[in-house]
Amino acid sequence: MSRILIIGAGGVGRVVAYKCAQNSEVFSDIWMASRTQSKCDQIAKDIQANLGVNVHTEQVDADNVPELVALIKKIQPKLIINVALPYQDLTIMDACLETGVHYLDTANYEPKDEAKFEYSWQWAYQDKFKAAGLTAVLGCGFDPGVTGIYTAYAAKHHFDEIQYLDIVDCNGGDHGKAFATNFNPEINIREITQKGKYWENGNWVETEPFEIKQELNYPNIGVRDSYVLYHEELESITKNFPSIKRARFWMTFGQEYLTHLRVIQNIGMASIVPIKYKGIDIVPLQFLKETLPDPGSLGDNYEGETSIGCRIKGLKDGEEKTYYVYNNCKHQDAFNETGAQGVSYTTGVPAMIGAMMVLTGEWTGAGVFNVEEFNPDPFMDKLNTEGLPWHEQHNIDLEVL
Amino acid sequence: MSRILIIGAGGVGRVVAYKCAQNSEVFSDIWMASRTQSKCDQIAKDIQANLGVNVHTEQVDADNVPELVALIKKIQPKLIINVALPYQDLTIMDACLETGVHYLDTANYEPKDEAKFEYSWQWAYQDKFKAAGLTAVLGCGFDPGVTGIYTAYAAKHHFDEIQYLDIVDCNGGDHGKAFATNFNPEINIREITQKGKYWENGNWVETEPFEIKQELNYPNIGVRDSYVLYHEELESITKNFPSIKRARFWMTFGQEYLTHLRVIQNIGMASIVPIKYKGIDIVPLQFLKETLPDPGSLGDNYEGETSIGCRIKGLKDGEEKTYYVYNNCKHQDAFNETGAQGVSYTTGVPAMIGAMMVLTGEWTGAGVFNVEEFNPDPFMDKLNTEGLPWHEQHNIDLEVL
Repeated sequence: MSRILIIGAGGVGRVVAYKCAQNSEVFSDIWMASRTQSKCDQIAKDIQANLGVNVHTEQVDADNVPELVALIKKIQPKLIINVALPYQDLTIMDACLETGVHYLDTANYEPKDEAKFEYSWQWAYQDKFKAAGLTAVLGCGFDPGVTGIYTAYAAKHHFDEIQYLDIVDCNGGDHGKAFATNFNPEINIREITQKGKYWENGNWVETEPFEIKQELNYPNIGVRDSYVLYHEELESITKNFPSIKRARFWMTFGQEYLTHLRVIQNIGMASIVPIKYKGIDIVPLQFLKETLPDPGSLGDNYEGETSIGCRIKGLKDGEEKTYYVYNNCKHQDAFNETGAQGVSYTTGVPAMIGAMMVLTGEWTGAGVFNVEEFNPDPFMDKLNTEGLPWHEQHNIDLEVL
Repeated sequence: MSRILIIGAGGVGRVVAYKCAQNSEVFSDIWMASRTQSKCDQIAKDIQANLGVNVHTEQVDADNVPELVALIKKIQPKLIINVALPYQDLTIMDACLETGVHYLDTANYEPKDEAKFEYSWQWAYQDKFKAAGLTAVLGCGFDPGVTGIYTAYAAKHHFDEIQYLDIVDCNGGDHGKAFATNFNPEINIREITQKGKYWENGNWVETEPFEIKQELNYPNIGVRDSYVLYHEELESITKNFPSIKRARFWMTFGQEYLTHLRVIQNIGMASIVPIKYKGIDIVPLQFLKETLPDPGSLGDNYEGETSIGCRIKGLKDGEEKTYYVYNNCKHQDAFNETGAQGVSYTTGVPAMIGAMMVLTGEWTGAGVFNVEEFNPDPFMDKLNTEGLPWHEQHNIDLEVL
């Protein structure tokens, strides 16, 4: 029986709150806080109506450590699930340290003024969390998150040595809008307009954005154009599984999406450099978020499904072996269950499961951890029962390897 | 010997100031005012350096009638050349009436909150200008402006009855940027994202944006995709030449330009509806202006040329006749002469000539006039000597008719 505080009330926050409410034997007392309390209130209202579970709401500015500390002291949760903005990871970690509360997030810290995706800032908290006897779980969404768990599971059960890893992320859905991002457009566009990067033979190989393209076949979806881009779990997975010779991350994009992205860059709206306008600083990409469809609004008529998985090649008992483990998630199913589309769902469910792992003592330890450092088995079990069942294929043609 | 005041210091204002300075026998005393005086100062500095002519500068908010009146009373110009924003036509006309000064502009008034292109607001000033004994010249750029003069010239010298008019506007230039508009992007995008409209048999026929497309061949440029869109001179020309059975306006757009335009609309950045952001109202399209290249910066490496003209079919001495009158303007030539590219140049030169017509007494009369209501001959002469020479072809295949 544990009290938790969810910070952030976007689509992912909605899913986390729903899934926690469905597991009240673990999450006995659920609190939600966001800069805009009314967003929390709406989610709480929906959960009360649909699940009959009470969710408490609060207002908080997650950039402000003293404000966070005051809120945490008031609520006294055992763990904080941070599904706010990646800019706010460090302030929330600071507040956790000050108040003695476990921490879990789904995306690595990013400085606001620089699109840089790496764990260095959060890994630097290792000693502090160790000294405080607290657990910080980093990157516990789907990717990062389940992709690390899949890799750990493969390493534990199916391989003596993982040599090649391709994480493949396909959104085969259609939201019916001319253009929309599946999560916060600011974070999404920052991420995918960066140069690509993959791990090979102990080094990072940099690529131009969308330079490496391949048609990949996704279960139940079909062939989709897939592009190598950098994704943060590559950093921790290659560190935690040093036998990996090459690790890449692939994501699908349609031509129309890429055209929109190209134009958004051409017209200067992907820029994160503030412009002085009417006396205030405006970051074009942040303003663009206001004119694009709210990702939370995409659920309603979102057709199709996502498919995310790990395609792995390595050695088992001296033999070469391939392995593909993946989940497919239908946007409509996600929406019917939680009122949020599949991309929010696939991120929120693992965050809840990760919190469950900490609260039930399956995952323990003082310090800062990436998910693949923990025992994957109880997490994999929960994926099957909490809405993200996984499938595996052995010794198939992995296409990308 | 006359004193003039130019309001507006964008690319067109720059050209007007240069051309006035080149004609100091008419424009003996040149003043420039803008919201941002430093823009006027830069132009004045360039003109002083290149032509040795002194241009006085002032600061003014052209939305503010009392401020305009105070400035006009101080300067006491004979005529105001308004090359500010179309939103400001009425305030400047009001100030002219209050101070007894002639008025000339290059684009019809538009209300800020509605993309509506029509002369109604300015034509409603007819009686006031008549009563004040003042001349207001509307739409004296290239299009509107020279296109009306061309039509009046054709009617005067080459036709007994003009029946079909196609105004064809080609920018065959390449500015080397991924995307940029040739004049204020706010005004440009408002204009071209509207539904199309053309005049036929006494009625306006509405089209979807870019619905009617035809490949047209432009002198010295070649074949370009051309689209029917509404342009304001159609309203006054069809009124002043009631024999016209069909009048259309064609503009060239490349596929990349249209793709950018489509995306700008899809992502909500073409919207003129304000969004509350960080406590202030921001109009997306106005903010986009800040992230797009400054049209004034396009001159430097702008290759190629513009070609704008009128393709006319009608009757002369009982015979059917076709006639094509046009100007081609090289961006580099315009830039070398004035520091502004061809689209600014082709708008600014006619504004100067129109002012010259009023100040030298070639164009007289109390009231509000569109340019085609005046004698076109002295204006046509000046086009040849002031940088926009015209060419004519008789009885050729007009393609569009």
